[in-house]
Amino acid sequence: MQHEITKADANLEITLIGTGTIGLSFAAFHLQHLSDASQLTIYDTRPDLEAYVQETLPKFFEGQTIPLSISGINIATTLEEAVTSAHIIQESGPENLPVKQKLWAEVENHAPKDALLWSSTSGIPASQQAQNMQDKTRLLVVHPYNPPHIMPLLELVPSPQTSSSVITRTQDFWRARGRVPIHIKQETTGFVANRLAFVLLREAIHLVDSGVVSVAELDQIVESSMGPRWAVAGPFKSYHAGGGPAGLEGFFKNIGGTVQECWSDAGSLNVGDGWEDKVFRQARETYGVVDVGERDRITRRVLEVLKEEQNSSKQRVL
Amino acid sequence: MQHEITKADANLEITLIGTGTIGLSFAAFHLQHLSDASQLTIYDTRPDLEAYVQETLPKFFEGQTIPLSISGINIATTLEEAVTSAHIIQESGPENLPVKQKLWAEVENHAPKDALLWSSTSGIPASQQAQNMQDKTRLLVVHPYNPPHIMPLLELVPSPQTSSSVITRTQDFWRARGRVPIHIKQETTGFVANRLAFVLLREAIHLVDSGVVSVAELDQIVESSMGPRWAVAGPFKSYHAGGGPAGLEGFFKNIGGTVQECWSDAGSLNVGDGWEDKVFRQARETYGVVDVGERDRITRRVLEVLKEEQNSSKQRVL
Repeated sequence: MQHEITKADANLEITLIGTGTIGLSFAAFHLQHLSDASQLTIYDTRPDLEAYVQETLPKFFEGQTIPLSISGINIATTLEEAVTSAHIIQESGPENLPVKQKLWAEVENHAPKDALLWSSTSGIPASQQAQNMQDKTRLLVVHPYNPPHIMPLLELVPSPQTSSSVITRTQDFWRARGRVPIHIKQETTGFVANRLAFVLLREAIHLVDSGVVSVAELDQIVESSMGPRWAVAGPFKSYHAGGGPAGLEGFFKNIGGTVQECWSDAGSLNVGDGWEDKVFRQARETYGVVDVGERDRITRRVLEVLKEEQNSSKQRVL
Repeated sequence: MQHEITKADANLEITLIGTGTIGLSFAAFHLQHLSDASQLTIYDTRPDLEAYVQETLPKFFEGQTIPLSISGINIATTLEEAVTSAHIIQESGPENLPVKQKLWAEVENHAPKDALLWSSTSGIPASQQAQNMQDKTRLLVVHPYNPPHIMPLLELVPSPQTSSSVITRTQDFWRARGRVPIHIKQETTGFVANRLAFVLLREAIHLVDSGVVSVAELDQIVESSMGPRWAVAGPFKSYHAGGGPAGLEGFFKNIGGTVQECWSDAGSLNVGDGWEDKVFRQARETYGVVDVGERDRITRRVLEVLKEEQNSSKQRVL
């Protein structure tokens, strides 16, 4: 029988492989959501792993209570030990295809048959990572929006081989913990969130490169318009509302001409096209080193307001 | 001497021309920020103007106190009467070039020499609107992010003829009222905010049209990732932070390859390409008629958190 990984997970064992920023951010998330009887295991090949984790992980709780369980993390010394009794094995290693292919083949040898196998990759599809596995139905990309201990989104990107029960169990896990797991139906390049963000970034770079606005001004524009708007209602919902009773169709009827003009006039610069010096320099001069703790604290407050509102409108519906 | 239009504006006269959604939303904004001795005048060619304004305007204050001054609005019956003693004349009429050209030529005949002349257009540059004016230095596009009584952004888009004092006075006006006026340096098609939002919308449509995600899922993705992120830190600041100590340059060093792959793979569909039926239908089925009052109420709360945080970090710096 499969382990029940929703709220009733009294004895859940989660293993994290890889201790970069994403891996440790996931560790922080799991520590805040594990029940006492559960176990978090961390594995990485670095020799100072235990000292490194104990020193670095508390930084992810800046301004918040550090869970007592931080001292109860199991530091594994071999991959076999790390995965042998795990219910969930979550990989956040280097973005290197051969490394991941070798890892999953080994994990498969040692892990329980029904353990969920998740990769945090931002670009390497599960179908490629699973190449050397016997059972390719088990692997699923679970791509976070950085940092995952703060941001609610998880993109679940199965390969064509991934079984639907793996997808469902993974959705249940994250939903039970208040997160937003979205099933991406195809192994699209860059998945969805990054594709959306990067096309906007491309246009932003084009406008700064052309001298229309500065880096600072462009960010102020986004922070005082579509940022807060899209935090509350995504682009389709927003433009559907913008079209009045005729919805998105009405919106395009009203200003489809302007939309098309913007599309036709959009920049199409590429990495290496020579905009880098100007844009990188402006970013450096404007921001120096960003206080990420401050950003995360404010983001938490915004997300709390949004969650509160969501819960209260759910209650109104019930 | 020019009228001082910052905080000490005891006797400010503001005239709004046009009573569509944008015009009335600006009316709501001004009513909340005018001092008692000041005057808001509204002009439009519709015959039932007074009844229409008194009936429609209160809807913009849903859930909030309606300012007493709503009954003190001056309803003008001719353009001459509307503008003859105004300090600010703000036009939110139809997006029609000949209409706007004729309007500004008439306004110029009747308005005080130092009155600020603003157009809310989302697409027609000031240089074209001013064609029939004697003094083309006076006109400025002041493009809001809808609805302006809620959203902080104003894009100030001068023509090459617009005087720098008109730009400065306009910035002072909005800053004194807690808004974010950004000076756009060129008359770019669609200005900046819409260009950014529309390239993301284009990719969003492409992903829904290709079956990668649904309209509802795409919105959930944005609402749980870049929406709240960009409300707190715009795209450049976010990716500059994402690059660690090496900043935006480090970010591109790390994942510039993935960024370029997303750019190369981005959709390039156009209005009329046949995606409309599917996408419009999904939007209708998902959202029906959006409760804009609810959206605005939540947006206000998010913006309050952001303003509070901005003020407290300003105080820390002082």
